[in-house]
Parts: sequence; structure tokens; C-alpha cells
Amino acid sequence: MSTDRHATRRSKLLSLIRRNAASALLITNPRNVTYLTGFTGEDTYLLIGPQQLQLFSDSRFETQLRDECPDIPAEIRTARTLMPDFLANLLPKFNLKSIGIESTSMVASVRDLLAEKLKPVEIVSQPGLVEELRMIKDADEILELRAAIHQAERGFELMRSLLITDQTERQASHDLEHGMRRFGALRAAFEPIIAVGDRAALPHYRAGLRTFQEAGFALVDWGAVSGKGYHSDLTRILVTSKLPPKLHQIYGVVLKAQLAGIAAIRPGARCQDVDAAARKVIEEAGYAKYFGHGLGHGIGLDIHEGPRFSPISGDELKPGMTVTVEPGIYLPGIGGVRIEDDILVTRDGHEVLSSLPKEAPFAAG
Amino acid sequence: MSTDRHATRRSKLLSLIRRNAASALLITNPRNVTYLTGFTGEDTYLLIGPQQLQLFSDSRFETQLRDECPDIPAEIRTARTLMPDFLANLLPKFNLKSIGIESTSMVASVRDLLAEKLKPVEIVSQPGLVEELRMIKDADEILELRAAIHQAERGFELMRSLLITDQTERQASHDLEHGMRRFGALRAAFEPIIAVGDRAALPHYRAGLRTFQEAGFALVDWGAVSGKGYHSDLTRILVTSKLPPKLHQIYGVVLKAQLAGIAAIRPGARCQDVDAAARKVIEEAGYAKYFGHGLGHGIGLDIHEGPRFSPISGDELKPGMTVTVEPGIYLPGIGGVRIEDDILVTRDGHEVLSSLPKEAPFAAG
Repeated sequence: MSTDRHATRRSKLLSLIRRNAASALLITNPRNVTYLTGFTGEDTYLLIGPQQLQLFSDSRFETQLRDECPDIPAEIRTARTLMPDFLANLLPKFNLKSIGIESTSMVASVRDLLAEKLKPVEIVSQPGLVEELRMIKDADEILELRAAIHQAERGFELMRSLLITDQTERQASHDLEHGMRRFGALRAAFEPIIAVGDRAALPHYRAGLRTFQEAGFALVDWGAVSGKGYHSDLTRILVTSKLPPKLHQIYGVVLKAQLAGIAAIRPGARCQDVDAAARKVIEEAGYAKYFGHGLGHGIGLDIHEGPRFSPISGDELKPGMTVTVEPGIYLPGIGGVRIEDDILVTRDGHEVLSSLPKEAPFAAG
Repeated sequence: MSTDRHATRRSKLLSLIRRNAASALLITNPRNVTYLTGFTGEDTYLLIGPQQLQLFSDSRFETQLRDECPDIPAEIRTARTLMPDFLANLLPKFNLKSIGIESTSMVASVRDLLAEKLKPVEIVSQPGLVEELRMIKDADEILELRAAIHQAERGFELMRSLLITDQTERQASHDLEHGMRRFGALRAAFEPIIAVGDRAALPHYRAGLRTFQEAGFALVDWGAVSGKGYHSDLTRILVTSKLPPKLHQIYGVVLKAQLAGIAAIRPGARCQDVDAAARKVIEEAGYAKYFGHGLGHGIGLDIHEGPRFSPISGDELKPGMTVTVEPGIYLPGIGGVRIEDDILVTRDGHEVLSSLPKEAPFAAG
């Protein structure tokens, strides 16, 4: 872990805190704690402000904190004190008039307890500041995303090489996850979607008990989590016997839409325009109503983060953002096609980070 | 899914709501939604009261809701409305004076938005009601827990049979997870702990890059999630060459403590007394200060739930509770021993649900 890197992130957050005239912040979202400190454990909060830098954790993580972020002081509670009470006891010594909280991750009961016990200190909702910084990836993060993509791609190739057609979706999903771990992933980025036949028309199906031979193809949507916690996210179509002609035709439309979306990615582009560039291709082919989700999303310490590609997105692309581009067409009762890659916004355009072929559906089994 | 079973759970909750003079409850903890409805997806809330029964979900889950809980009406939002706004729009039609929320799972920002938009309806914190019911398992749940234990045990045997001593802890952990899935688990109940050598002295170590041959033994703490989402939790010591004599001696103490704890389990027993029965054995052997955690916890839809075994627990055992008993002794720099089984409280005593041998450490590799 580069502690320099984390110190740089913390000083950027302090600028953001000042610009927003915000108070010292109590960081409770565990991804945000990882981002600012390098600590990868759980149940650990960070107080950060112009004159404040303090972790609050418990005895389970003493060794890990020493390894991962030796430069940040940590208060350690024992099992006899609950975290909210621990905070209520220790926060007064910082003499703050108000404390900002991440209200989109702190549960209401903890906020209530802090508000009551810390009176007259004001507890102020200040969500989203670290998430704003996290949209722009630094060099370390881009390396981690490349690793997560590599792990996902190698795992997919291994699953494909192991595939027999009387396997169920779930068995293949387990092979896929095991394959990604073999190549260094900590775990799957999410429970893989492996959807055989008409199940491919359900964008949020996972993997069930259908076998590959019940239809000749499957949609596979999967990703890996790298050693430091970064997420990749990919989708391909896998054909074990034959893709129905209708879906074969649709494949060409989706691919054209995806390439159009990717081509629109550059610094300064509005995310709704990137979405529109891909959506237009699908609309012109007559499938507008069969593409019901946004074109993509940021990836990083979370599998879904900013920016968002959708018709109503207000985001704008900047160098260092990493995003998915994943148009799809879903025909109820027949199946669906989605093609998804991971893309880095560069200073003068973009770089497609993922590399699995997509000119045609994958053959397997 | 037995919808009768879920209806029974809902009517028990209504009795509890009445007894606590509570309002209609908005259930937001996803495990609690599963418990009351059988729905296993995400991002779906349940309003339940004497005259209210309503799910709030989104279009991703329409099919799944129809499959898993066809008897409960569901309001479906589209991707254009966020859940908090959706709730704020729909809840007024129930004409409630107050709405109870699960404040230990609802984040502060959602509670703020509901409180603001639903005025003058009062938003009242009423946490823990469903968790209280969930402590007592019904017949369906006990079957699921038996399945989760079986999956964990078969997965462990498979991992052990695959083990070679130049494997890392992490590779063995991946084999273990893959093994449990092979026998029907949805996933591991938590990232398995496989701690070689002196790492076994860290109760919350996970699995790293140490190989088995760097020491002759490992502590393995793992569990499976069954098809309907129930968690098992087991610990054994695995010896690939030799257990240091000191730990061999400690093994006998921990086993005696575990058997004493299990022997104390019966309806009406106080959880602090069960903890004390095991702790006394460890204290008398002179290792009191090396057993720093509680004796065990409930298992079910969560890996940690009520009741708790600890010196300060106020819980009391009742038939139908399912708990772990897991004393341990941890010697810094040397290693640790923990032995953990899953136990059902029966009408007249208890039944040990797990069955892996424990008279001596497991031989492997």
C-alpha cells in the first residue's frame, strides 16, 4: 500500500471539505475508509478534518491497521464497548462545533445516538464528498482495475474450457468464480449472471438450475475483485450449439451500439450524450423499447459508482474515470444480447481496458 | 417456498407489534423481508401492519416476486424513480399516523427524506422486532440449517482431500468455497479463515499467502449458505505435519471447554451461564486471558444473530434456537486452537447438528 497515495487523497478531500464549507467528516462507508487510508478491514471509521486524523476500530484489526496504515493513529475499542458508544465517548475531545456524517451509509440509529450524546455538537449530513473524488482514478487504481479485468478474462476462458453442456448455469457460475480466484481475484465482483436461453432476456437473472443443453446459448455477465478491492464488469454471449437467427441479428445491432458508445467517450463528453450515441443505434434498428437500462456506470472500489450513463445523467467525463459500456436488447421469451467492456477515459480520448473478442458470440462446449 | 410458513411468521410479528403498541412497520432489512415473505432478492421493502401488507420493489424483481411470494401485493417502481421518493409518494395512501422503521438498517438519509416528505406522519424507530422472532427457528429453517452444515462439512472434506502442502491459505480457501458450492451451497457464509501457524492466534485473520508447509498446522473457520440463505459456522484444526506440543495440550483444554459449554445448553439456561460453563474450564487451566471473545452466537439468515453467549449476555435459551459453541485459546507468536459446532436447542436439551470428528485435530496433506 502506498501511504503517499492515500495522503494525497486525504489532502484532496480536505480541499473539498473547505470548498463546501463542511466540518470535519466522520467517514463510515468502508470503501471510503479504504480509499483514504489503505485499510481493507471492516467496522472501522475515520475522522478527518483540517486538524483531525483519527481511526476508530477494534481489537480484531489492531495488527492489520499497523500493517496497512501505520501512519494514522487508531483508537481501539474492546468487545465490551459498542462502536456508537465508543465514538460518543471519544469524539468530544476533538472540540468540534459540528461533525459531518456520511448519511447515505450511517444507519439512523447510530446517527440518533451520536446526535443525542454529543449535544450541543451538531451532526450534519455531508454525503458524497469521497465518492466525488473516487470517480477519478489515480495510477495505482488503474493498475488494480487492469488486474481485476485480467482476472475476470482468464477466469472466463478457464470456465469456457471446462464447460460441458449438461452443466447447470450455477455450476458454470461456480467454475467461473473459482477460475477468477485462481488467477488472483479475491472473489467475484458480484454473483455472476449466467442465463441460458430465454432467461437471457432478464437483465438481473443470476444463475439457476437450467443446463446449457436446454438452449444453445447463454448470456454471461461477471467480474472479479482484485487484491486491493477493485471491480471489473464484463458481459459476453456464449454459444454452445446455435444462437437463434433473431438473436444473431440483434447481436450485430448491440455490437454496433456498443462501439458507438465507446467512440463517444472522451474528456468533456456529457454522459447523457454517450448514452444517446449508443441508444440511437438501437432505436434506429427498431428495438428502443427492448433496451430498458442505462448504458453503463463507473467501476472502482464499488461495482456501481459514478459516473452514470443514462438519458437523465448530469455527469460529465473526465480523464481518469473508468466506466462500463453495456448496451443490451432483451426479447421476452426468446433471449437477450448484452456486450460489456471496461473503458478508461484518457487525456485525449479513451482506452478499452478489456480485451476478450466480441466480433461474434463466443463458441464453447 | 412455503407461503403458509411466511404467513405464520407475519402473524407472529403482528402480535409483537400489538404487544409493543407499535405502528405499522416498514421492513427494510433484506433478511427480515426474506424471513417474512420468502422473497430472496434485494432492494425490496415490506409494509406490514394490522390492515397493511405491501411490498415495494422495482422492475428487476417483478418475475421473482411473482415466483417467490405471489400472495403479497407489490408496487413496482421503474428506474426513473428512486426508492425513497417512491415510498414518499405511496405511503400516504395507507393513512397511517405513524410508521415504524428499522432504524438499525435504514440509513439516515432515507429516514430524513421520509420524515420530511411524509409530514405530519411520525417516523418512529422500532428496531429489533423481526430479529426477536428470528431467534426461534421453525421446522423449515432447521432443515435449511442442516443443509448448510452438510454443505460445509462436505466442502471441508473435499478441500482436505485436495490439499497439498505448498498450497497457500488462500488457495485452500478457494478450494473450500468451491467445494461447498459443489454440494449445493449458494456461497461461503463468510470469507473462510485459514490461518497457518502463528496466524491461528489472530481470531479474525482471513486467508493469505502463507503456505501450509511454513508450519505444520492451520486453524480453519468456515461455513456455507444454503439455497434459502441460512448460514452454518464451523471451526477445526487441520494438521499437515505436526501440532506443537503446547498447542496439542491446549487442544485438550479447548475441547473440554467446548463439551462443557454444549452440555449446559437447554431451554431456560441463561446464555451467560453457558458461556461461564466453558470459560471456567479454560480459566482453571490457566488460560483465561487467552480467550478474549464470547462463547458463541445464533446462526440463521445472518451469520451472527441472537442469542449471544458472553459474560454480559442477558439472553436466555429457548427451544428452536440455533447457536454456535466456539471457545478458543490464542497464544501470540505460537498459534491458537478453536473448536466450533452448531447446536439446536430442543424441548428437553440440545442436539449437536454438526458432525465432523473433533476428538483430535484433523490430519491432512
